[in-house]
Amino acid sequence: MKYAIKLVDMVKELVIIGGASAAQSAAIYASRAGVDVTVVADEYGGQINNTDKVENWLGIKSIGGPELADKFTEHMRDYDVNEITGQKVVNVSRPEDNFVVELEDGNTFQALSVVIATGGSRRRLNVEGEEEFAAKGVGYCAVCDGPLYQGEDVAVIGAGYAATEAIDYLTDITEKIYVINRSKGYSGEEITIQRIKGQNKVEHLENAEVEKFYGDNLMEGLKVDHNGEIKDIEVPGAFIEIGTKPNSQISELVDLTESGRIKVDDDMNTGEPGLFAAGDVTNKGVQQLVVSAGEGCIAGLNAAEYVKEVR
Amino acid sequence: MKYAIKLVDMVKELVIIGGASAAQSAAIYASRAGVDVTVVADEYGGQINNTDKVENWLGIKSIGGPELADKFTEHMRDYDVNEITGQKVVNVSRPEDNFVVELEDGNTFQALSVVIATGGSRRRLNVEGEEEFAAKGVGYCAVCDGPLYQGEDVAVIGAGYAATEAIDYLTDITEKIYVINRSKGYSGEEITIQRIKGQNKVEHLENAEVEKFYGDNLMEGLKVDHNGEIKDIEVPGAFIEIGTKPNSQISELVDLTESGRIKVDDDMNTGEPGLFAAGDVTNKGVQQLVVSAGEGCIAGLNAAEYVKEVR
Repeated sequence: MKYAIKLVDMVKELVIIGGASAAQSAAIYASRAGVDVTVVADEYGGQINNTDKVENWLGIKSIGGPELADKFTEHMRDYDVNEITGQKVVNVSRPEDNFVVELEDGNTFQALSVVIATGGSRRRLNVEGEEEFAAKGVGYCAVCDGPLYQGEDVAVIGAGYAATEAIDYLTDITEKIYVINRSKGYSGEEITIQRIKGQNKVEHLENAEVEKFYGDNLMEGLKVDHNGEIKDIEVPGAFIEIGTKPNSQISELVDLTESGRIKVDDDMNTGEPGLFAAGDVTNKGVQQLVVSAGEGCIAGLNAAEYVKEVR
Repeated sequence: MKYAIKLVDMVKELVIIGGASAAQSAAIYASRAGVDVTVVADEYGGQINNTDKVENWLGIKSIGGPELADKFTEHMRDYDVNEITGQKVVNVSRPEDNFVVELEDGNTFQALSVVIATGGSRRRLNVEGEEEFAAKGVGYCAVCDGPLYQGEDVAVIGAGYAATEAIDYLTDITEKIYVINRSKGYSGEEITIQRIKGQNKVEHLENAEVEKFYGDNLMEGLKVDHNGEIKDIEVPGAFIEIGTKPNSQISELVDLTESGRIKVDDDMNTGEPGLFAAGDVTNKGVQQLVVSAGEGCIAGLNAAEYVKEVR
């Protein structure tokens, strides 16, 4: 009986999994609605931690990504939110009425309602040398590591949204930028693409694929198949900027799309009553900060309403 | 022939109708995407102009509504957006390929794509004396006009989200607050409701309806039917805070829900190709600033894509 009482003691009202705009927006709205909120986050900030300048957060013309992330966290801390940080959630299940949330350290606790707002992670290329030279020349975040290659030549793999932002950023730092992508042309924000196209220092290899990264202790270059011809690109730094994949491998209670995103309705409900999802991990919206924050608001308010019904 | 050329000259790429967060977010994203944007707004700011403090705009713990509205407008003006202000749009039609946007002054122009982000307006009670004493004691915005009644008694009609925010605000200013509502209890943000309930100066008349506002030159009080008994509430100020209705009477090209909201899909498309809607005027989301801004982002990006296809 003591065990049962202990379990009851440990039931949290609302657990929000994630540490970026969707999660923090959900936490603020649910707290304001009078619900007890626990946020579980590996780290705060998410993808804007890797963004040099954010210029599309309405009301702020330009701000450093990490600086904006700090503002979000400070705002959340203005409310009485419980925080569990430095921990990933490995599973959300529902053996009985309550949800059971399992952390990577093996700890578990129960919750009346859960919001999954785990965002996305950088995609890998999966070619020879990628793992060997990771952080030894091969990177996934030009904004984080670009300044290491001041005045040197670099390569960017990809030509989509993430890549164009990376190239745009690197033009102010590096000497020359080789852009390697499988298809033709750029996609992303037109304003960024136009800026890139006006740059002499960008050499765009279309119909090109990375065969391998080579080097000794550090990466020294890439072998690239360009229209069937193998080219050697000698650079000390290469950035793989081919987008993100959703961090959705967290619960068997949700349905995923083909691309691995959690299916939600307009109320951010996953279909499992009391289990919501918001932000880049879902199949809704476009992957923009303000959209994630809006989804977090909806999820937070609806989760709070659910908690008030079942508490 | 000259006339035809003139018309072609006047075709705008994207017209965004509205002046608050959804419209301004759409304008920023569409501009960044390389599309020529014209914003038509009666005024900027929308409903936050009538909000004392905004405490749920992620990243800012607390800010005056009009101040936040100014930040949004300044941000939008950082981009090359054409502005037509002090003008309402009375109709959006599509006699041929292009949309035709008609202003209240009779001017019209053509557009390749249109985003309707006209938000909502305050609801009226439609009882005797309401029109006669409007702005002579009867108001719709406690935050705007509350300070006129420093140390006096006031009435608030309604007990939902808008009303609870109004009551909460008035407790710091006025002597006594009569709350009059048709049903029982409050709805709104729990944190606000708890604060109100802790106030002795609030007298809540449930199951109550306003019969009329009376007075001479200025309003002097209300006759209220409270559980079948007519009560006289002598106050110099009364605030009708019963929510907003969508400003959706703007185009026959869109479908409306029963409550008059414009139906949109996840891409904020109205069903008419190239015609989008975002924010409180739509049937999506909850009516919160960050949700409107997120919808504006989606509408702006999709409208920009449409313009690039047809331009």
